[in-house]
Amino acid sequence: MIDTAEIRPRMLMGPGPSDVHPRVLAALARPTIGHLDGQFLEVLNDIRDMLQSVFQTTNALTLAVSGTGSAGMETCVVNLIEPGDKMLVCMAGVFGTRMKDVAERAGADVTAIDAAWGKVFTADDIRAAFDQHGPFKVVGIVHAETSTGAAQPIPPISDVVHDAGALLLVDTVTSLGGMDVDVDGWRIDACYSGTQKCLSCPPGLAPVTFSAAGERALANRASKVQSWYLDMNMVRKYWGSERLYHHTAPINMNYALHEALRLVLDEGLAARWQRHRDQHLALKAGLEGLGLSYLADPDHQLPMLNAVSTPDGVDEAAVRKRLLDEFGIEIGGGLGEFKGKAWRIGLMGESATPRHVQAVTSALKTILS
Amino acid sequence: MIDTAEIRPRMLMGPGPSDVHPRVLAALARPTIGHLDGQFLEVLNDIRDMLQSVFQTTNALTLAVSGTGSAGMETCVVNLIEPGDKMLVCMAGVFGTRMKDVAERAGADVTAIDAAWGKVFTADDIRAAFDQHGPFKVVGIVHAETSTGAAQPIPPISDVVHDAGALLLVDTVTSLGGMDVDVDGWRIDACYSGTQKCLSCPPGLAPVTFSAAGERALANRASKVQSWYLDMNMVRKYWGSERLYHHTAPINMNYALHEALRLVLDEGLAARWQRHRDQHLALKAGLEGLGLSYLADPDHQLPMLNAVSTPDGVDEAAVRKRLLDEFGIEIGGGLGEFKGKAWRIGLMGESATPRHVQAVTSALKTILS
Repeated sequence: MIDTAEIRPRMLMGPGPSDVHPRVLAALARPTIGHLDGQFLEVLNDIRDMLQSVFQTTNALTLAVSGTGSAGMETCVVNLIEPGDKMLVCMAGVFGTRMKDVAERAGADVTAIDAAWGKVFTADDIRAAFDQHGPFKVVGIVHAETSTGAAQPIPPISDVVHDAGALLLVDTVTSLGGMDVDVDGWRIDACYSGTQKCLSCPPGLAPVTFSAAGERALANRASKVQSWYLDMNMVRKYWGSERLYHHTAPINMNYALHEALRLVLDEGLAARWQRHRDQHLALKAGLEGLGLSYLADPDHQLPMLNAVSTPDGVDEAAVRKRLLDEFGIEIGGGLGEFKGKAWRIGLMGESATPRHVQAVTSALKTILS
Repeated sequence: MIDTAEIRPRMLMGPGPSDVHPRVLAALARPTIGHLDGQFLEVLNDIRDMLQSVFQTTNALTLAVSGTGSAGMETCVVNLIEPGDKMLVCMAGVFGTRMKDVAERAGADVTAIDAAWGKVFTADDIRAAFDQHGPFKVVGIVHAETSTGAAQPIPPISDVVHDAGALLLVDTVTSLGGMDVDVDGWRIDACYSGTQKCLSCPPGLAPVTFSAAGERALANRASKVQSWYLDMNMVRKYWGSERLYHHTAPINMNYALHEALRLVLDEGLAARWQRHRDQHLALKAGLEGLGLSYLADPDHQLPMLNAVSTPDGVDEAAVRKRLLDEFGIEIGGGLGEFKGKAWRIGLMGESATPRHVQAVTSALKTILS
């Protein structure tokens, strides 16, 4: 049996989780108290306020779902969708594909459009989908596709979606806290994220936010949300002033998120995004110096997720194993179409530092030379 | 803004969470590592093995769902139920009622039977339900009803359910780790629990186990499980030898559960159950000495959840507030039918000690006198 006291730390440079600040780990270990204790309700209020700042929104319905980022995806989908509702899902990687699966399980009548992995959608792509298959109640898209490293420009898509009277659902699991995510400015109606990427909190909670239009869709449902656990009409009554018991909140995970959000806001959003860009450029120079090439469209490269091709003749899994075993550095392998052919190097939150960039490039240089 | 470093500890004697051992809090704060890191996979293997011991089962499909106990309930229901499947739900409190809601949202054709709050079901009750409304695919029942303090005898019910060829689903959120829960001996087909009751781990994970017959029901589904996040056919491929990525496991919460389970098994199940019984008897003597009377059928009183009537003329919420503010002791109020009329005093895991019994009885004596 392993003793968790003997777990060796790593430099977490994969697609998440990212390194966690010692203050966040310390917060995790604060004494557990009750989910209706006034002290804990203050923690929840602070989290809501800080999530509003990080999402750049005034949305009242902003909270942390008691599950990981994928539970956040499911929360947004099952609360907006009723059986038979038409939904457009934009797929350009694993997470768009996952959203289609989640939506179908919720009973949505799904139209899915594809972009090549590493590419993004244009406003015209969305307009064409509406012309051919619309109208849709909801359009779902991934802002930062973790499987490819491509950043989807949201504003032009949002214009098309709202001109057509639909709701816009955006996955910001990998982007939130590491680049601009402007929920109000971009008119996003439902948005979810995870804690273990650029917020640098351990995995276990999913920040979500719903616009006024998203809330109206919730209020106007004819049927109950298919998931009791993720039903925002009930969960909101616990996070709101009613404090109505729904499920027992993950107390210590919320302490951790509270501390992680304080760190994000203490640094400042703009400074944090700049740090991610700076470290990305340094990493990119280093990787290209090793002859490695990026997989995503260069005009739409994410700063925090760097997917590069494994050179011909190199065993990608063996390199990752050596990085972990000999250097204590975790990076990710390819998923789906890129399985066995790519590395995914994360620069997320606490892992977006010169020390990390230096460590991974020099270790890769040693292994590949 | 609250500083989580300044959170005042409490004595947690409500319906959960319970007090957490310092070793478990320390485990929570270990360095976050990746969900495919070999060290973490050892943690998961250990958790599966230890959960098998605590559930008293050899079930291969035994793991911790990445959500709280209510997510465990939803996991068991949505994996066993396909739309239109007939399910019998036994309701004698809040959590049986919740199971009916969850089952209906999963598309089950639900027959619900009631027992008075604080009472339990007999084998004859279940037999009568089969005679009048059966057959059923699944029968769901709560072992330890947290809202009333009543313990449901499972074996005679299990005989009826299995004689009729149905699957038995049992909620052991409050009982697991504090009294006998014999999944194999009682022939339970799907069982879920929570971490924050008698396992004395912070809330955030839901141990679940499925029997071979439960697994066959999963394998034979004609439709996908409605919840992607809770789909055991996928989650099991991550917990199993395939290690197929599904969602990012809550790393640090699993550290905590690992340590909490070690503490449970170091103490020994029989010794732990005896400790809960002993402290219950001591508390019962103390409460009855204060003139307080229990709400549940005395033949079926749970050791870890003591629901007593608030005396006439006493403001139950005001007493709880004084206990918390002046004595640092949290107890619970009544739910549902017992709202405003009852206190629920928990003796769960680390909170089932003579120190806790002494503290709450002497504080109540001071306040009520």
